[in-house]
Amino acid sequence: MSDINRVLRLAARPKGMVQDSDFDLREEPRPELTKEGQVLVRNLYLSVDPTQRGWIERDSYLPAVAIGEVMRSFGAGRVVASNDPDFAPGDLVSGMVGWQDHVVLPTKGGGRPTKLPPGVPLTNALSILGLTGLTAYFGLLDIGRPKEGETVVVSGAAGATGMAVGQIAKLKGCRVVGIAGGKDKCDWITGELGFDAAIDYKAEDVAKRLEETCPKRIDIYFDNVGGDILDAALLHLAMRGRVVLCGAISGYNDASALKGPKNYLSLLVQRGRMEGFIILDYFDRVGEAFQELGAWFQAGKLKDRVDVVDGLENAPAALRRLFTGKNTGKQLLKIAEG
Amino acid sequence: MSDINRVLRLAARPKGMVQDSDFDLREEPRPELTKEGQVLVRNLYLSVDPTQRGWIERDSYLPAVAIGEVMRSFGAGRVVASNDPDFAPGDLVSGMVGWQDHVVLPTKGGGRPTKLPPGVPLTNALSILGLTGLTAYFGLLDIGRPKEGETVVVSGAAGATGMAVGQIAKLKGCRVVGIAGGKDKCDWITGELGFDAAIDYKAEDVAKRLEETCPKRIDIYFDNVGGDILDAALLHLAMRGRVVLCGAISGYNDASALKGPKNYLSLLVQRGRMEGFIILDYFDRVGEAFQELGAWFQAGKLKDRVDVVDGLENAPAALRRLFTGKNTGKQLLKIAEG
Repeated sequence: MSDINRVLRLAARPKGMVQDSDFDLREEPRPELTKEGQVLVRNLYLSVDPTQRGWIERDSYLPAVAIGEVMRSFGAGRVVASNDPDFAPGDLVSGMVGWQDHVVLPTKGGGRPTKLPPGVPLTNALSILGLTGLTAYFGLLDIGRPKEGETVVVSGAAGATGMAVGQIAKLKGCRVVGIAGGKDKCDWITGELGFDAAIDYKAEDVAKRLEETCPKRIDIYFDNVGGDILDAALLHLAMRGRVVLCGAISGYNDASALKGPKNYLSLLVQRGRMEGFIILDYFDRVGEAFQELGAWFQAGKLKDRVDVVDGLENAPAALRRLFTGKNTGKQLLKIAEG
Repeated sequence: MSDINRVLRLAARPKGMVQDSDFDLREEPRPELTKEGQVLVRNLYLSVDPTQRGWIERDSYLPAVAIGEVMRSFGAGRVVASNDPDFAPGDLVSGMVGWQDHVVLPTKGGGRPTKLPPGVPLTNALSILGLTGLTAYFGLLDIGRPKEGETVVVSGAAGATGMAVGQIAKLKGCRVVGIAGGKDKCDWITGELGFDAAIDYKAEDVAKRLEETCPKRIDIYFDNVGGDILDAALLHLAMRGRVVLCGAISGYNDASALKGPKNYLSLLVQRGRMEGFIILDYFDRVGEAFQELGAWFQAGKLKDRVDVVDGLENAPAALRRLFTGKNTGKQLLKIAEG
């Protein structure tokens, strides 16, 4: 094990798209256990998520990452040292590990790592069976509350959360339409994932295509993007339709340019509901979700796809991929061999 | 009883503020009972409501009033002829009576009139104990779901729905802040109606005053106005806050100018919910509301205020008063002596 810890610290608040220069790559001494109830983890994969763009701009559901702080990131790795009998060297864990090679985490309290279930590949544990799978699961089922036969539309449909939302909605008996950018992504969600229809927002008129693909209008719109697509979906909402607010990636690089949904009064006319959620609130219910997601995954009913970039130094580039639509499936950054 | 029926028929779809010339005032023969199950009603008071502006512009939760059709309006009057034993001449009723002196209504089905409870003044039966009281009641309690000690903010607070929302919220143990235009209205809602605080949106910085008057942020924002005030309220929403969408009067005269709420992502960060409703959906639950509203009213715990304009020919002017903020309390139009 190297004595060096490569770390990416926030150097500047980004303006628009994240730049490499917004972070300082440093070599620091590897951290050590300093008190009881700690583990030292060798990070292997980092989760790359749109919400990280918000974390470096302003306080929201979590305080903003401070200038000089290690960039906050979810990820997974292997325990290399522990002074808590609940964790042994070799255990695979996930948690808020940061953009760095090693991290010391407390074994109790909110910042503690989660032991990964045996037999699940690390990449899937960060994707369909990780935070994004859970986000899709609770957002769709707890906030959206789908009923069999309803029409579910999801944007960012070929992304980590969207692909899970669509598949779960199909498993719950819904008609599913995905909105994604480009023919390849659209072909993939209908061909591989079993979505009923796809809309290529880069090439098609989304409002017109929503009318064509949702003849009974939209019962649940699961929004990952915001902007004009949210407005188009609102206009086509069914009576008592629900809009699940998961994200608004179209506005993350320039919050001042993010427009409000001018068609929000559809919620009034259609007796609709628009509701937001944060997956952090569901940690006490993770068990029920894992049981169902895990069973579907093992049975081959729930597919996963990850898009892996290599090397800690490429973390800012990996984050940019989310905002240029380069990733298909879950974007991960591999920083060491398992 | 006159053989003449004065009628205001829609002549043109209004552009911006409603004009007298958007309606034709005609003298037509008084309608007569033509078949079983009808009543002839002499209209006495018409309810003047912001939503009527929408009815003459486009289809929404009701089809648009057609050019040449009698202007749709809720109102109350006295039965003068009936061929249904359930209704006797002299009965006071309310219903969709239109801008006219007389109306023939079916006594069964959706368009049937409601008999008014004895002992309730007609004006109150069209206000705090009428559709606007019910709108406040179900919107606040069923959609907003207030808990004792929570902070409720209502816009259009000195209007018909707003004054009811604030008083009901107080009766349910909430802290209540009203947003209204002008010192007189603000003094009235805090002085007479017992609101905890008022914000004069014409003279004060609403966002700043929301911070001052809602130190624990906003648990329920009951929106009658839309626009910048909705945005200010969203920004100050409490964790798990609810936005009850009742109307958006700021945009009714120019829907194209109505901005979407750019701060809608507060719903995500705060795990909030924004939900619309239409009072027409609650007709099977009117009994429970009347029981509670009536008891409060009789006990003097729920105050009413009506603002009466005289003369059917002044109906367009009465409607305009809503959009220039001239009315305090419920705007009514008196068209005949009871």
